[in-house]
Amino acid sequence: MTQPAFHLSREHIHTTWDRSLTPALTIPEGATVVFETLDASYGGVARSVAGNGTPTNDALARLIAEHAYPERSTGPRGHPLTGPVFVEGAKPGDTLVVEILDVKTGAWGWTSCRPNGIGLLDKVLADMGELEAPTSRYWDLREGAHARFSPSIRVPLSPFCGVMGVALAQEGQHPTSPPRHVGGNMDVRQLVKGATLYLPVEVEGALFSVGDVHGAQGDGEVCGTGIETDGLVTLKFGVLRGAGIASPQLGVPAMFDAHLGEKGWFATTGHAPDLMEAARIALLEMLRHLKRVRGLSLVDAYILASACVDLKISQIVDAPNWTVSAFLPLVIFED
Amino acid sequence: MTQPAFHLSREHIHTTWDRSLTPALTIPEGATVVFETLDASYGGVARSVAGNGTPTNDALARLIAEHAYPERSTGPRGHPLTGPVFVEGAKPGDTLVVEILDVKTGAWGWTSCRPNGIGLLDKVLADMGELEAPTSRYWDLREGAHARFSPSIRVPLSPFCGVMGVALAQEGQHPTSPPRHVGGNMDVRQLVKGATLYLPVEVEGALFSVGDVHGAQGDGEVCGTGIETDGLVTLKFGVLRGAGIASPQLGVPAMFDAHLGEKGWFATTGHAPDLMEAARIALLEMLRHLKRVRGLSLVDAYILASACVDLKISQIVDAPNWTVSAFLPLVIFED
Repeated sequence: MTQPAFHLSREHIHTTWDRSLTPALTIPEGATVVFETLDASYGGVARSVAGNGTPTNDALARLIAEHAYPERSTGPRGHPLTGPVFVEGAKPGDTLVVEILDVKTGAWGWTSCRPNGIGLLDKVLADMGELEAPTSRYWDLREGAHARFSPSIRVPLSPFCGVMGVALAQEGQHPTSPPRHVGGNMDVRQLVKGATLYLPVEVEGALFSVGDVHGAQGDGEVCGTGIETDGLVTLKFGVLRGAGIASPQLGVPAMFDAHLGEKGWFATTGHAPDLMEAARIALLEMLRHLKRVRGLSLVDAYILASACVDLKISQIVDAPNWTVSAFLPLVIFED
Repeated sequence: MTQPAFHLSREHIHTTWDRSLTPALTIPEGATVVFETLDASYGGVARSVAGNGTPTNDALARLIAEHAYPERSTGPRGHPLTGPVFVEGAKPGDTLVVEILDVKTGAWGWTSCRPNGIGLLDKVLADMGELEAPTSRYWDLREGAHARFSPSIRVPLSPFCGVMGVALAQEGQHPTSPPRHVGGNMDVRQLVKGATLYLPVEVEGALFSVGDVHGAQGDGEVCGTGIETDGLVTLKFGVLRGAGIASPQLGVPAMFDAHLGEKGWFATTGHAPDLMEAARIALLEMLRHLKRVRGLSLVDAYILASACVDLKISQIVDAPNWTVSAFLPLVIFED
């Protein structure tokens, strides 16, 4: 028997994880829900575009400053999340199974960084005099398969939800920025259409919410934002009884990412006694490479890297130095 | 004009990085060299097999204890490396270009871990009573495309050199275990046939050496060893004048890893304020999953993961928790 599809509009937004929230929707196990989601500027970017035609990056900088992630990590205003959804029959100790049937982006996306932001190299680039003010850019997502960065560079789109999670057992308002053992802002870019997410249930009904669709992102989300956008997300919910997992798990569809390998990769490596430092070395070398061979400013390279460069832990055992590598898919270059 | 091919046999072994070593070979720029390499047991495993037919894991445990990586991280006896090669014309500030023309494994490989070793979960598994003695296993590499782990599990082979590097400017004997800005034990598994490695030159002639071929390994080399094996490695050398890179870089051939995606992936996630801890959580969840659904012991799962599970940094910006994910390619399962 096909279960009915439910719909949750952008009116049903909350901005902290909180088990005491009233469910926006109650569904039976097996149901499918279509969620409208807002981006981290609370739809401000989309509204600006609607009012003024093609947006400018100056307008974006103002919008981001007003609306977006300054408030992400503290206080009550975090990511705008659509939900929560109460799944009948889900109980603490169960596993919520979320099949990702579809993830559609809005028409426009944006990526942003700033001198004292959350990005991996904000301070390094600021100290070098390369990041002196908040820097943002729009991406036109209307073509669907790619987003253009420059006349010769375009990034393949692979939309996913940056945030999917359930309420914590612990009472109170929990900020949305950090991901946790119950999911949330995991920014796992493999959670695309066709993937399945498994989340540990801690409260009756699970209280699932979703938001923060990214049109694309590299593993790492290095500058602090992916290609941030509104979304339309279709998810199907199931429950595994008493399956008790300790942290989110996922299934990823066959041949995911295969298109990224069509032209091979260029990669940089960092070797240091701290994984964070190794990642910084690898990423800075990647930005310098993009400056040297493509003429990009380091900040433009940083934004591009956040959209498509993957951080891998190459080895985590050769003490005292660990190796992190940054992989750039050459398919982004059209020349 | 085709340059002649040179050959360096396993007699030309050294076990520390040291700029004062006498070159085993001097070559012109553009030359190709075939290197015989020894595994981390100094060929002991191969010799044991030759003497006694198919090896046993008990014999392997003894061999490893006698010959292998206890000595890797300190003292003069590190990885057995073939070289060094003096490349005419390479000067400090140049970049050595190493084209990887071929990497062949030996007939047998091994993977090993132990309670107080270098692996990511050695202590965790020992504390759980799951890793009480050194544990090793052989892999039969003679079929070439895969190595069998169990009747229903086989790991695709993708041979690469765990160690490629050049001498440091700094005088003295430097241990081989940690990779550095001049390369070395990087364990970057994408350095396969068809890839190109770029290394910063710090001394006249570069003094390049190679060793530690792995038949396969996941990003992370989580238990401390990949599929360790002897090798026959063909490399071509070039020099970029004054290109001054700060850390090793590489080019990776098109469609690398595409075969790994044929059946999709299962992945676990870890979220913690420390990347190392996030990696531990993700990996332990992966081992528990392999125990639950495939009936493996946690130690067998650990060894299997070291050969084929990839650690990705999903996000490094959502303070205070970073996300590391462990990806298992389902193509390893034949049922």
